Amino acid sequence: MRELAQMKETLALAIIMEAGSMSVGHGIQALGLVCFAVLLCSPGAQAEGQPQLNLMPLPASVQTGGGSLRVNSSFSVALSGHTEARLDRAVERFLRQLARQTALPLSGRAASKAMLTVHTDHASKEVQELGEDESYTLEISSDGAKIDAATPLGSMHGLQTFLQLVEVSPDGFTAPGVKIQDQPRFPWRGLMIDVSRHFIPIEVLRRNLDGMEAVKMNVFHWHLSENQGFRVESKKFPKLHAMGSDGFFYTQEEIRSLIGYARDRGIRVVPEFDMPGHSTAWFVGHPEIASGPGPYEIERKWGIFDPAMDPVNEKLYKFLAEFVGEMTKLFPDHYFHIGGDEVNGKQWDANAKIQEFKKTHSLKDNDALQAYFSQRLQKIVTKHGKAVVGWDEVFIPGVPKDIVIQSWRGQASLAQAASEGYHGILSNGYYLDLGWTAARHYAVDPLGGAAANLTSEQQRLIVGGESCMWTEYVNAENIDSRVWPRNAAIAERLWSPQGVTDVASMYARLQAMGTELEWLGLTHRSYYPQMLRRIAGPSAGPEELAALRTVADAVEPVKDYAREATAPAEPTSATPLNRVVDAVPLESETARRFGELVDKFLAGSCHDADTEARLRAQLTAWRDNDGKLQSLEQRSFLVKEVAVSSQDLSALAAIGLAALDFFKANRGPAADDWKMQQLGVIEQINKPKGQLLVMPAPAVRKLVEGVSAGGSCASKGQG
Amino acid sequence: MRELAQMKETLALAIIMEAGSMSVGHGIQALGLVCFAVLLCSPGAQAEGQPQLNLMPLPASVQTGGGSLRVNSSFSVALSGHTEARLDRAVERFLRQLARQTALPLSGRAASKAMLTVHTDHASKEVQELGEDESYTLEISSDGAKIDAATPLGSMHGLQTFLQLVEVSPDGFTAPGVKIQDQPRFPWRGLMIDVSRHFIPIEVLRRNLDGMEAVKMNVFHWHLSENQGFRVESKKFPKLHAMGSDGFFYTQEEIRSLIGYARDRGIRVVPEFDMPGHSTAWFVGHPEIASGPGPYEIERKWGIFDPAMDPVNEKLYKFLAEFVGEMTKLFPDHYFHIGGDEVNGKQWDANAKIQEFKKTHSLKDNDALQAYFSQRLQKIVTKHGKAVVGWDEVFIPGVPKDIVIQSWRGQASLAQAASEGYHGILSNGYYLDLGWTAARHYAVDPLGGAAANLTSEQQRLIVGGESCMWTEYVNAENIDSRVWPRNAAIAERLWSPQGVTDVASMYARLQAMGTELEWLGLTHRSYYPQMLRRIAGPSAGPEELAALRTVADAVEPVKDYAREATAPAEPTSATPLNRVVDAVPLESETARRFGELVDKFLAGSCHDADTEARLRAQLTAWRDNDGKLQSLEQRSFLVKEVAVSSQDLSALAAIGLAALDFFKANRGPAADDWKMQQLGVIEQINKPKGQLLVMPAPAVRKLVEGVSAGGSCASKGQG
Repeated sequence: MRELAQMKETLALAIIMEAGSMSVGHGIQALGLVCFAVLLCSPGAQAEGQPQLNLMPLPASVQTGGGSLRVNSSFSVALSGHTEARLDRAVERFLRQLARQTALPLSGRAASKAMLTVHTDHASKEVQELGEDESYTLEISSDGAKIDAATPLGSMHGLQTFLQLVEVSPDGFTAPGVKIQDQPRFPWRGLMIDVSRHFIPIEVLRRNLDGMEAVKMNVFHWHLSENQGFRVESKKFPKLHAMGSDGFFYTQEEIRSLIGYARDRGIRVVPEFDMPGHSTAWFVGHPEIASGPGPYEIERKWGIFDPAMDPVNEKLYKFLAEFVGEMTKLFPDHYFHIGGDEVNGKQWDANAKIQEFKKTHSLKDNDALQAYFSQRLQKIVTKHGKAVVGWDEVFIPGVPKDIVIQSWRGQASLAQAASEGYHGILSNGYYLDLGWTAARHYAVDPLGGAAANLTSEQQRLIVGGESCMWTEYVNAENIDSRVWPRNAAIAERLWSPQGVTDVASMYARLQAMGTELEWLGLTHRSYYPQMLRRIAGPSAGPEELAALRTVADAVEPVKDYAREATAPAEPTSATPLNRVVDAVPLESETARRFGELVDKFLAGSCHDADTEARLRAQLTAWRDNDGKLQSLEQRSFLVKEVAVSSQDLSALAAIGLAALDFFKANRGPAADDWKMQQLGVIEQINKPKGQLLVMPAPAVRKLVEGVSAGGSCASKGQG
Repeated sequence: MRELAQMKETLALAIIMEAGSMSVGHGIQALGLVCFAVLLCSPGAQAEGQPQLNLMPLPASVQTGGGSLRVNSSFSVALSGHTEARLDRAVERFLRQLARQTALPLSGRAASKAMLTVHTDHASKEVQELGEDESYTLEISSDGAKIDAATPLGSMHGLQTFLQLVEVSPDGFTAPGVKIQDQPRFPWRGLMIDVSRHFIPIEVLRRNLDGMEAVKMNVFHWHLSENQGFRVESKKFPKLHAMGSDGFFYTQEEIRSLIGYARDRGIRVVPEFDMPGHSTAWFVGHPEIASGPGPYEIERKWGIFDPAMDPVNEKLYKFLAEFVGEMTKLFPDHYFHIGGDEVNGKQWDANAKIQEFKKTHSLKDNDALQAYFSQRLQKIVTKHGKAVVGWDEVFIPGVPKDIVIQSWRGQASLAQAASEGYHGILSNGYYLDLGWTAARHYAVDPLGGAAANLTSEQQRLIVGGESCMWTEYVNAENIDSRVWPRNAAIAERLWSPQGVTDVASMYARLQAMGTELEWLGLTHRSYYPQMLRRIAGPSAGPEELAALRTVADAVEPVKDYAREATAPAEPTSATPLNRVVDAVPLESETARRFGELVDKFLAGSCHDADTEARLRAQLTAWRDNDGKLQSLEQRSFLVKEVAVSSQDLSALAAIGLAALDFFKANRGPAADDWKMQQLGVIEQINKPKGQLLVMPAPAVRKLVEGVSAGGSCASKGQG
């Protein structure tokens, strides 16, 4: 039988439900359950692969029970209470996904008694709204399972939770006995995808929506226009997409279909048309609404550019009134994102009419001019019954209260807005393109920083957050790997109670989540060996490929905005994304695990022969790897690019091995000289080369520093 | 610069073009070229990953030239001569595929001067016919490339050849300077897929057609009906698909679409409706055409079953006249496959009317009765302007001459038919489900065995062959891995000159082909880690997964028809295909390479420290692996199944390591005792367990036998 019953006794820790969020803590007493949150995979306490509940995001409350439910070919689902076609489709999708996870041939035909019953109380809104009831309960015992939810949104979340609980066991596939009561901490849990800098085909968006459903995100923010592309078919202004997209745009039919696809998964679709800047692609077909003279071409480079709409031109407002009218009909969501970020004002400054207008209307600077534009635009949007979302810049004192500020600047910006009564969502800290670790994203809380000091009423105005996938270096091939699995950690931050912060647990569950996402069709794992084979060329043998993989697994792309700064040639939208820097995951799992092992070693277990042996094995493999890659470096320009990183990795590993030797035999003063020298070498290795960072460098530095701090292992770490 | 120019000097070997095939050797002198066939990757002579032309199938003639053509973002293609929409689509597909292989953003817009021009002389037949001109020439120099072909079929083949030539180089992507003159050895080069025992979705068929195009196969044989399923929508007899398919069938619209998809790739679609046996699924809706009383149910088990059509019932022929009329309209190909295999005659023997009929008509046995049925059915098919294809059993003296015999029995059967003037295609030796190695399939020649003794005129009646993918243990998830890459070796056998038989070259090119097939969307590689993760469960850590992979990489499923014989429980169509035996490739690359290394060691290079070190490294990894898998074996029933294989692999590796030690130090008579004992252990290990074979066993046996044969390494292999 499963060890879960024992886990209940030994690992379950009661936690106090967090207050300070919109919807946590309701309905639990009503269920008559004692609330436990299981401390999952506490670091160190749990060996690799021990049983755990692979839930992500962690539910508000999990109580593990005895026994488990067999999941076999006769598994079936029944719906009760409120029914609708969307729920039928959700069950079909659930069964299809369960069949993928298990390879069981599930007919889906209801047996006499369904193994899982889903009771839904009532319908949700026809057009999904912010703050609808998404709660559910899930009870599993050896006899069957039951989901109870107020609305289909909760029922669908419950189905996803069930899928995550299905595990392989000694006797077949099973789901553990549990009682789960769950609801989100924040009602706005979004993923933004920029489809303009690189076009992202609709089927790629679809599978990312599948991933969002799996991690209970509920807003797809579709960044649809940019300097580099206008991606929506406009029937009123067909020159927008015809001339501004290179032919890469979504038809209105495709858009309606995607919105339906999202609704089926409990996801709202918020369109963004970025104005008045970030809009060069509009002007290719419509130079008359720009502030500077045309003609314009689709922008091919990255950065902030001068073109901006002409805020003093009445024709612009006429244009936007029609355009917004068309788009607000196409996109049913209550929110309409108008962008508003990063106008550099150069075109405005160079335009005499605009200067004149500013004087006449006492607009003291370009911020004031943008405020004027925003207010006019907001009126247009409001006239169509919608509310505006915009980046920090649209937050201008006096704007209507139902605006939502999306902050790329940080919690302070949101806190200020909230203190003045405005809603906000956080994106600062959730930029997936910057190459942060999942742990770093995970540590960012919408109610952290300056927001922590708000009153609970003000905090309630901060309705959630959105991860952002900007696509300068992201295309259809590697986007899944840039979004996933890290996005699941952000999804957990936005769903789970604030106290859920255990990083080791997060990483353990993230690994399982990665597998679930694979069954959904996401390519965040499968793309990688394929890209490495392209880099190596079809003639590369398995040992050469393994050597390339060893280097690739140990490096990461440079972080934040360093990629432009370190580019060998100015990157454009036509630059092929076929280099190692485009292929490797943004977070090296190998390096992370190595770092954990070094910490364990230094924390006193350097007497642990197993830890030392594992460190030595890894370091030896790295040290000996460079020689195996050299033939390939001579044959492929894409491999040649990582030659220096490969050498650095080998050199670094040799230092690490020498450090381990020092730990065995304290050589006194010699160690200090050696240390000084090696730290200098590591400092060089730690610098980015070929836009890559050799990720084990900091951990090896720790090892080297450990040597000089206390001499050999024998003299420290005892007791 | 590329080493290819040097290769030309050093490796090119003139070979005499083979006679004795239908279409080899034409047009070469006309081009004024000296014909060379490059000896690619000759074993031993070439280190891993050295430059090679990764062509598969090998063209009839390849002459390597100097220089190479750069392939960059401005690459473009122009068509000349005969044009048609299919060629435009072929170019689009070519560019898309080239973009995938290189990640270059190819606009496809023709530049002023196209880098590749494709000249097509004239149209091919509206409905593709057997034996149309598929020849082409391809010339590549540093200035550009040119394909010349008589018909679009040849042009499309030329485009595929070009794609295979694009390689990563020190300076970017390039295609080497070559002159290729090419045409197929056989005009019928097919892949049969059984979509009845397990339903194969249309999108999976599509990507397999993509794979067929890549390896220049030109017949998709669609095995559409079986005891276990009737997979085609029939408008005349809707009960056929409605009651005989569990809802898994292709609509006529889907079928037409797939036929168009195939035609676009130069592939004919030959439908098979297997009659009069293998037809239980027909009888679920139409028991009146069966020989025994109903009711019938869709068969769930595998094997040969009793139900057969009633050949003495006139209603049957009326039914078939209408049915064949409908299907011959749906499928435009000239050939119509009527199956005809494996009637056990039990229902006929048990039916008094049938017995009476046999007497009345002097039909001496059931073979004669089937001949009667076949002749009536062939008349129906012929009436609709089609020619019949059938398995060996339909070859009855006196049948019309335009029948094609598909032989599951072997070349002797074909030779007999050919000697009587009948066409034939070979499938014996090309059954992909039997788990043979690529090398074993590769060695089977349609003109081998008894067919080698035919006159060249008779040989010309043997028009090719078909690989067959029977799907008892194959479904949408693992089918790509069961077909590919081994099918490419069969494709080469059917396309390339008879003298192309170098197995080492084939394997080297097969590896590159595997990568190209991946870019086409085939999942023959990506499915595997995913299935292993399912087997291990989402909680398995990376080291556990690596341990599982190590065992999985070293085993193969039992061969031929042993899977039924060794099944733990009677398998049915509802048996989940989620076991290790369903996941592992049918040919272990690891074991094959290990075997090659052992051969190299024993062939005298046991003084080669590198070879010995590599053997030791592999054996040590295997020996130490079992311990790493044990925790997972206790948690997953699917891993537990391979516990014995894992132990066997470790034990085997320990023996191999001991053998290497013996090679180092001759211990005289002790070696003989040791040898006797170890060979006994290996014999046990060599027996299938859990339906798996531990594939390195024969190579380790060779090592052990090597010990006693000559004692230590020092005493042999010199000189």
